[in-house]
Amino acid sequence: MVHLFTSGFSEAGTEEGKQLENELCSLARQSGMRILGPNSAGIYCPKAGLTTRTDFAKESGSVALIAQSGGNYTYTVREGARRGVMFSKAVSYGNAADINETELLEYLAADPDTRVILAYIEGVKNGKLFVQVLREAAKIKPVVVLKGGITESGARAAASHTGVLAGSERVWDNLLRQAGAIRVFSLEELIDMAVTFSYMPLPRGRKTSILGVGGGATVLATDDCTGAGLIVPRLSERIRERIGRLLKEESGTILGNPMDLSLEAWDAGFYQVLSILAEYDAVDLTMVHIPLGLAPYQSSVQHKLWDFLLEEVVKAHRELAKPVILVLHLPSFGEDYEWILNAQRICYEAGIAVYHSIGNAARAVDRFLSYHERKLAGIRG
Amino acid sequence: MVHLFTSGFSEAGTEEGKQLENELCSLARQSGMRILGPNSAGIYCPKAGLTTRTDFAKESGSVALIAQSGGNYTYTVREGARRGVMFSKAVSYGNAADINETELLEYLAADPDTRVILAYIEGVKNGKLFVQVLREAAKIKPVVVLKGGITESGARAAASHTGVLAGSERVWDNLLRQAGAIRVFSLEELIDMAVTFSYMPLPRGRKTSILGVGGGATVLATDDCTGAGLIVPRLSERIRERIGRLLKEESGTILGNPMDLSLEAWDAGFYQVLSILAEYDAVDLTMVHIPLGLAPYQSSVQHKLWDFLLEEVVKAHRELAKPVILVLHLPSFGEDYEWILNAQRICYEAGIAVYHSIGNAARAVDRFLSYHERKLAGIRG
Repeated sequence: MVHLFTSGFSEAGTEEGKQLENELCSLARQSGMRILGPNSAGIYCPKAGLTTRTDFAKESGSVALIAQSGGNYTYTVREGARRGVMFSKAVSYGNAADINETELLEYLAADPDTRVILAYIEGVKNGKLFVQVLREAAKIKPVVVLKGGITESGARAAASHTGVLAGSERVWDNLLRQAGAIRVFSLEELIDMAVTFSYMPLPRGRKTSILGVGGGATVLATDDCTGAGLIVPRLSERIRERIGRLLKEESGTILGNPMDLSLEAWDAGFYQVLSILAEYDAVDLTMVHIPLGLAPYQSSVQHKLWDFLLEEVVKAHRELAKPVILVLHLPSFGEDYEWILNAQRICYEAGIAVYHSIGNAARAVDRFLSYHERKLAGIRG
Repeated sequence: MVHLFTSGFSEAGTEEGKQLENELCSLARQSGMRILGPNSAGIYCPKAGLTTRTDFAKESGSVALIAQSGGNYTYTVREGARRGVMFSKAVSYGNAADINETELLEYLAADPDTRVILAYIEGVKNGKLFVQVLREAAKIKPVVVLKGGITESGARAAASHTGVLAGSERVWDNLLRQAGAIRVFSLEELIDMAVTFSYMPLPRGRKTSILGVGGGATVLATDDCTGAGLIVPRLSERIRERIGRLLKEESGTILGNPMDLSLEAWDAGFYQVLSILAEYDAVDLTMVHIPLGLAPYQSSVQHKLWDFLLEEVVKAHRELAKPVILVLHLPSFGEDYEWILNAQRICYEAGIAVYHSIGNAARAVDRFLSYHERKLAGIRG
């Protein structure tokens, strides 16, 4: 196989570029040689010790990525690693002059090292075959697709980028839905799905209890979760009473679902609240969110409270039967930054799914559940 | 005026809480005393040296904030300052037992120190009067509203938080639109609008040229801008040629709109590209985006390239007739973090609007233009 990093072929939009690419392909066909690219940033396969960048993780995992863009390939592998997503294989396939998304998809569907496939696609040349292969792949393992170039101007950009015909939003939306792929709309959402499939135990349903710091943040968190398709059920009087008994002081907290945590208000460990919720039938999973930069403390004091919260979340994840996920907002200021990076690492080492916004967390859980519901419907049907 | 920080009144949902709040109000009325709160985090007025937190900025500005949530008030003031938004007044009004959102809005509409009003509202008691006052305020200056509790569960949370009846999504959507308010859906978008009104010169229209690093990032940026209501026009052959002449090497860049910058590819300054675009009739504004963690360099080398880019953007903002805005993604890893913080400060000191995602930047520009179009229609009509 020859890997062509260089650009200046069909994506340049010139006759010369197209002709060069065609010549390249026919030369390769004659000699039985395969071509990756041109305009490709290469292959990453940590198990085989193969990488295009020294800063990619050496650790192997079970997530595969195919990306038509080299930049998005690099970003997803690096950013994924920081969020605990480890890769089996990742391929930047560029102009797809010879090896293309369809062939790669077919290969990864059968690859025993790959449990989840992520794809960033700008366009395909043989739509019918692509749909067939995608449908088969999606039957075997989750395939998460980010389609670039869904607007007219975006499609024009895609044509200049990788020389493809991008197709319309409506066509792609139908195509991906019918093939059973999971559609996302940003690189962050693509990585969110990898985090979810890598770490999240399957909840029994959408009924979510929300626990966080700050009354207004709690109200907005509830809107975001409900808006993304989760259910935020009321807690029964009995459960509210049981939790209430753990409180040192009652005012300034919202005791219910959502719950506004005032960390100082808890006499007993926060773990106990999570364990009461885990026993409770009307709750399928718990989302804990920490909005940063809010508490009226010096960072060091605040960070100690959060350290405690984090320990309790890790304990709950290890010992309780229901999923707990964590939302850590990325702060736009320095004081909480190191804490966040460290907390994120602690979480993925403990196997807890971490997201950077409540909306993104809720959408990921919703897509995760929808995927499993479809699978179940397929088995039953 | 008495400011009541304490909670445990109507928001507690108990008869006792409601009664206490009523007693408080009638006592106040008898003595001619006004009450802010209860459940309020206070007032911030840097001009008068009045603050509830030592970490709020001492500098005055022209943005006012009313927030029903103390946490959201604190977050918006602190985060706003980091993004260059300085406040005339900010008020956390809590349960609004006496002083309420309507009265505050009326006051701020007439306040000569306030040019823009931001509002986080969970619910109002006298809807009719509120709409009247909001409509009058919105005629005088931009009023940006984030409504918390728009879903059924969110409304339940709002009732526990500040004791309000939150009202339905449909009612609020109509109400805000008809009153001429600018509606946003997150605290980040609320601050984005303050940044936009504080810094952005009014573009002549929606025609945006997009310049950034990375082909895939460029494709997604175009989808995000078009999806948010901006127009990404083609560049004429003449303009493409003029810009092309500034290029050292041609391949690996997308020369058009969107444009994929490869910083090493430019022989002349990046400023010259921006100045060609500023002269060009078919472009109303330029968005420059830097997706972090992409370039195949050590951070220090990468940061020098970005420093250069930043200098050129600052120069373009100072010298050219059309708006330039900048998108700096918040990285989820440390190496680029200090650079971002510093770049953000340089930008707001130079008066350049900075956003943290392309979607958010595009939505802010779209809302900014829609606001001015409505004003113009109002004057004409």
